[in-house]
Amino acid sequence: MNATLGGFTLPGEAGHDAFTLAMARKWGADVIRDSDGTSLSDEILNSGHGVYSTLCLVREDNDWAKNNPARLQQNFLMSAPVTAPGAEVVIDLLAGFSPDQFVVNDWDGVREFWQVFDRTTGVEVPSDDWDMVDGGRVVVRGVTPWHRYTVNFLVTRIWEEISMYNHVTNDWGDREHLRAVEPRYPEVQERLLQALEDWCVAHPHTTVVRFTSLFYNFAWFWGDNPRLPHIYGDWGSYDFTVSPLALRQFAATTGLRITSEDFVNAGRYTSTHNQPSRVYRAWMSFVGDFVLELGRKCVEVVHRYGKGAFVFYDDSWIGLEPYSGRFTEFGFDGLIKAVFSGYEARLCAGADVPTHELRLHPYLFPVDLQGRPTFSPGGDPVKDASRYWVNVRRALLRAKIDRIGLGGYLSLVEPFADFQDYIGQVADEHRLIRSLHAAGGPQMAPTRVAILTAWGALRTWTCSGHMHEHPELILTQVLESLSGLPFEVTFLDFDQIETHGVPDDVDVLVNAGLAGSAWSGGDNWRRSEVVTAITAWVAAGGGLVGVGQPSATDRSTQYFQLAAVLGVDQDIGDRECLNRRSFALVDHPVIDGVDGADLPLQRGVFLTCDDSDVFAAIGGTPVGVASRFAEGRSVYLSGHTHGPAAARRLDNAIRWAGRAGPADHRTSNPLTEVAYYPASRTFLVVNDSQEEQVTEVRAPDGVVASVRLPAGGMTALKL
Amino acid sequence: MNATLGGFTLPGEAGHDAFTLAMARKWGADVIRDSDGTSLSDEILNSGHGVYSTLCLVREDNDWAKNNPARLQQNFLMSAPVTAPGAEVVIDLLAGFSPDQFVVNDWDGVREFWQVFDRTTGVEVPSDDWDMVDGGRVVVRGVTPWHRYTVNFLVTRIWEEISMYNHVTNDWGDREHLRAVEPRYPEVQERLLQALEDWCVAHPHTTVVRFTSLFYNFAWFWGDNPRLPHIYGDWGSYDFTVSPLALRQFAATTGLRITSEDFVNAGRYTSTHNQPSRVYRAWMSFVGDFVLELGRKCVEVVHRYGKGAFVFYDDSWIGLEPYSGRFTEFGFDGLIKAVFSGYEARLCAGADVPTHELRLHPYLFPVDLQGRPTFSPGGDPVKDASRYWVNVRRALLRAKIDRIGLGGYLSLVEPFADFQDYIGQVADEHRLIRSLHAAGGPQMAPTRVAILTAWGALRTWTCSGHMHEHPELILTQVLESLSGLPFEVTFLDFDQIETHGVPDDVDVLVNAGLAGSAWSGGDNWRRSEVVTAITAWVAAGGGLVGVGQPSATDRSTQYFQLAAVLGVDQDIGDRECLNRRSFALVDHPVIDGVDGADLPLQRGVFLTCDDSDVFAAIGGTPVGVASRFAEGRSVYLSGHTHGPAAARRLDNAIRWAGRAGPADHRTSNPLTEVAYYPASRTFLVVNDSQEEQVTEVRAPDGVVASVRLPAGGMTALKL
Repeated sequence: MNATLGGFTLPGEAGHDAFTLAMARKWGADVIRDSDGTSLSDEILNSGHGVYSTLCLVREDNDWAKNNPARLQQNFLMSAPVTAPGAEVVIDLLAGFSPDQFVVNDWDGVREFWQVFDRTTGVEVPSDDWDMVDGGRVVVRGVTPWHRYTVNFLVTRIWEEISMYNHVTNDWGDREHLRAVEPRYPEVQERLLQALEDWCVAHPHTTVVRFTSLFYNFAWFWGDNPRLPHIYGDWGSYDFTVSPLALRQFAATTGLRITSEDFVNAGRYTSTHNQPSRVYRAWMSFVGDFVLELGRKCVEVVHRYGKGAFVFYDDSWIGLEPYSGRFTEFGFDGLIKAVFSGYEARLCAGADVPTHELRLHPYLFPVDLQGRPTFSPGGDPVKDASRYWVNVRRALLRAKIDRIGLGGYLSLVEPFADFQDYIGQVADEHRLIRSLHAAGGPQMAPTRVAILTAWGALRTWTCSGHMHEHPELILTQVLESLSGLPFEVTFLDFDQIETHGVPDDVDVLVNAGLAGSAWSGGDNWRRSEVVTAITAWVAAGGGLVGVGQPSATDRSTQYFQLAAVLGVDQDIGDRECLNRRSFALVDHPVIDGVDGADLPLQRGVFLTCDDSDVFAAIGGTPVGVASRFAEGRSVYLSGHTHGPAAARRLDNAIRWAGRAGPADHRTSNPLTEVAYYPASRTFLVVNDSQEEQVTEVRAPDGVVASVRLPAGGMTALKL
Repeated sequence: MNATLGGFTLPGEAGHDAFTLAMARKWGADVIRDSDGTSLSDEILNSGHGVYSTLCLVREDNDWAKNNPARLQQNFLMSAPVTAPGAEVVIDLLAGFSPDQFVVNDWDGVREFWQVFDRTTGVEVPSDDWDMVDGGRVVVRGVTPWHRYTVNFLVTRIWEEISMYNHVTNDWGDREHLRAVEPRYPEVQERLLQALEDWCVAHPHTTVVRFTSLFYNFAWFWGDNPRLPHIYGDWGSYDFTVSPLALRQFAATTGLRITSEDFVNAGRYTSTHNQPSRVYRAWMSFVGDFVLELGRKCVEVVHRYGKGAFVFYDDSWIGLEPYSGRFTEFGFDGLIKAVFSGYEARLCAGADVPTHELRLHPYLFPVDLQGRPTFSPGGDPVKDASRYWVNVRRALLRAKIDRIGLGGYLSLVEPFADFQDYIGQVADEHRLIRSLHAAGGPQMAPTRVAILTAWGALRTWTCSGHMHEHPELILTQVLESLSGLPFEVTFLDFDQIETHGVPDDVDVLVNAGLAGSAWSGGDNWRRSEVVTAITAWVAAGGGLVGVGQPSATDRSTQYFQLAAVLGVDQDIGDRECLNRRSFALVDHPVIDGVDGADLPLQRGVFLTCDDSDVFAAIGGTPVGVASRFAEGRSVYLSGHTHGPAAARRLDNAIRWAGRAGPADHRTSNPLTEVAYYPASRTFLVVNDSQEEQVTEVRAPDGVVASVRLPAGGMTALKL
């Protein structure tokens, strides 16, 4: 491998040809891509680089989409609850929702699919008691005065969400609003495949079609209220795969009954963070089958034209599911993931596909996803890039990523010479890491970790979406720490545990999240076979790490169903008059070299026995507890917010619970980390902080070296 | 009324006769009492004062009690959960419980009343699968390995809890452990009544028998583990009224089935803070009937001897229930309540009984209830007394209390001349307040408040126990503020609302507490008739004040079932992906003269509509919200911790929700308060703080006066 060239995808921009090619040289780019809103000139296309072309099939032919409103994508919405002032209530269906995005579908399936609910009681209103009236309203008769009523109804979407976001973010004013067509209609499928054929013919320079992504966007409901401009967004929910056609096909194919309420869930929709229902999982499979069937045809077309087919695993990714077990059947040549964090890099790296590529941040837009300046006044793109790269790089030490790249308007970079230099350094660092992986992977710890959630393997290395969207999710923070630790990590669901017990290749089971969430598992903890299997497995020598409200559900004497194993349980307010054991803080291997100072108060947690070791507490409430249970061990942590000390504490906790010794290779300074590549006899030492750091690098036979690393720096030490 | 004499009960102590009589003069005492552990000498008995004699009938004849172990009081316990390591599990019933307090009752009702549970599943183990074995153990066979098992079993108590507490607190070493007999046995009843007769004959000087209290103590389980010396304690729970005889009588009398698990509740017992079950309420009535029947006979005996009968409403008070509606049937001449707080004074003042008496704190013991020094080195009894008196006095401004007094060892006071002086001042202040009530009560605000809880009137002016035991209870804090505010306050339960709607004499309904508690109402909020009735009532002009998690239960689209009225709801973690309305803070009459700075974060609270006014917030989360709903109004407060500013904010909130104008009489300084007695044309102005304060006193027609009050002081202004 060339150490100064390759593995880098650069976003080219027509009209800035010389700058594009200069940056390609500076960053060692072997591929040039276009982006949403940019195009490539002939000069770039003929520059000898590989060429990625972005293509979002469902929004490619906007004229046809506009002329065929009945072929646009749809979804269910729940109207805002209206309190009935008398025996009749009139509900304005779209009140609060963006009229730029949604139009009520009043032509197909109103009686078949819509549902009206008394939300005070949760009881459905008989279909005879309500009617559509003019102006997108529903009138409900014979209601109970002062109860609240809602309508679940179908809407067509007249603005595709990524188009909407890019448009609003970049002030595209009079540019056309793109619409997404529903590919389940045979005529739409035919048009998409034909368009793809035509496109391939028309784009001979393109070496790789970069699908963005396939057919269905994640759910994103916009509002028309300046105080509530976005109503609902979930990177993993399948709300946008609904249409009368899909609903009818689902019933016919599966024999299962699915209703609007299965999607609406009393206004909670099908958020990934909540435990999925069985019928919703069936719907996801049904959608996955369709996306695979049509997606595979698209890949075949691309391959027929001698081009590669990569897919961007964000935006319209719903139904792709790289961890469904069927992902290879698409035949994609590469998977591209937009990353801010280490866990997203692991998500990409772990997928079964020939090429793994990361699209780094910052995106070359004037502002970032949260509206803060990047390449506009007040922005500091080097600082942003360095922060993200340091996050991502520690994951790359553990798992191989083949390519990195950027996206957006390259011309925005022109005034930022420091940014140009920094990306060159990032590209070089990536190529070095990649070469060490190619020569033979890093040494891993002997402890194998499994994360238990309601989703299991399907949501490998993600809780859905980027960390900044939901930094409060404990499991996301745990995954971020794990992404740079030397453990093999797998993901399990409750069915697997119930059917087969804890797999033989697991040493430590992790359950992390708040009560009721898909991540801790919610009602799954009422399955006593699961509780029994894990208890028996720990008793026989297994390790358990519980974070936040592990195994929590309100049942019988306990709130943490694994309280006996964890040595702690939680009073959620119904044990006011039960006293709590006092304890003394003890030192413990879990806080070796770190402490428990950043563990949060999880109100009401108490010790269930005398023999647990409390190594961290707030007031009289334990926040860090280590316990032995028969032959096994457990560690309870009240929470986890990723950071150098927290990551090391998690590392310690897993090693202690798994009865492993201390780490083979470790830095003395927790702000730095080390990975060892035995085949290359090379240590990579990274500085995860934005200040200079000095650290010793320790191996089993002593200190290897003492190194000084600049802010965010990396160095290789060869034995 | 004499301004320097009367209304004061002094605890005399034999051997300190001259000091007793000196203090009686100094404090204007008209009554001298004995206390647990003290006696009165002939000199004191013949001093011309009234004489109260404490009497706790159930623990009076300890020899008989020791010789009749089958006639002692009993209760259910749940053994500590034991994880089964195999197909059989052996459970040590009393593991962790105090062997000084409990003995397993293995002679009566084992098969009839005990229950064994698989606490992993919550399912009862068939009676055939378990047996008592030697050493107070139960063996359970055919269990599921790694499940947790418990036994609900009956114990006899061999140490009455107040005897135990006084003994341990005062280091009584070899003094006898008193035992409480079960008065349901006819022979025990006969003995008690005869003993009372004999006692009355033997105590001619006694003018008032002060029952301490009647028959059953509140629940208090002691442990034998130094890390868990008290396992469970609840001032209002009826756990100690259980016995085989009572259980059989209940079934025969009511026809209802009640089981050990109805008392054990998976280890939560019958804590007052949890919503009571219907069968438990039936049990309470059944116990109340018995206590009334026997208690009335006791009062009759006392009256037959020409003595008064007062009852101390603490300790063995279970079954007395001054707010059951039947309290007057006992025929008591007085009710005595131990008080630390204003709400406890209101509890006493509101009971229907001729004489209302408060026993102030500190108790004349070396240490207080929490083990801190009072009359021992390091103690500051004046500081304690002043703090408690200031709390209590503001309630006395609003409701008449006839008498105050102290308890314990008077001799402990001897070295504290400042304390002797301070109590003299307290006695004078009380006599002045009492005289103003006697001439005509204080002017009240026009707004009438009702507190809605699962208990309703039965738990008037209390959440069970003293504030320092559970300062985290929102409703206790609300009651403490209300105790000194000029509102009429009543207490409602959900049956009343469901059956009759909100009563006509209510202007503002208050619901305050955490989700799931008896105070917010728990599952009662699933009764849609209640939600409808309150919604309709507010719409028609009623006022609602919700504090903490008002109307919270997880149902349908909402967590706060009155979300539409309150303008806020709460995301308990299942709405991660639903966005929240932004808002701007506004000024509002609710925070007139105060602010919302001390309102706590109640995570996940969000606005449900655009028209609510947020007057306090933490980050983006509203903590204080005022809303209009049709003709009515509501105020949401995220919590409440009593204090001068919080009390005033609650005052404002109630007035605003009730559409009343500002207060007629108010001080400019919230650390002071004023009450106006129209019949006497007198203002009482109190300083609630421990520093000197200056304040203006305002009346509708302007400023009445500007006054300077010493720390904790009080002054009367006559127009």
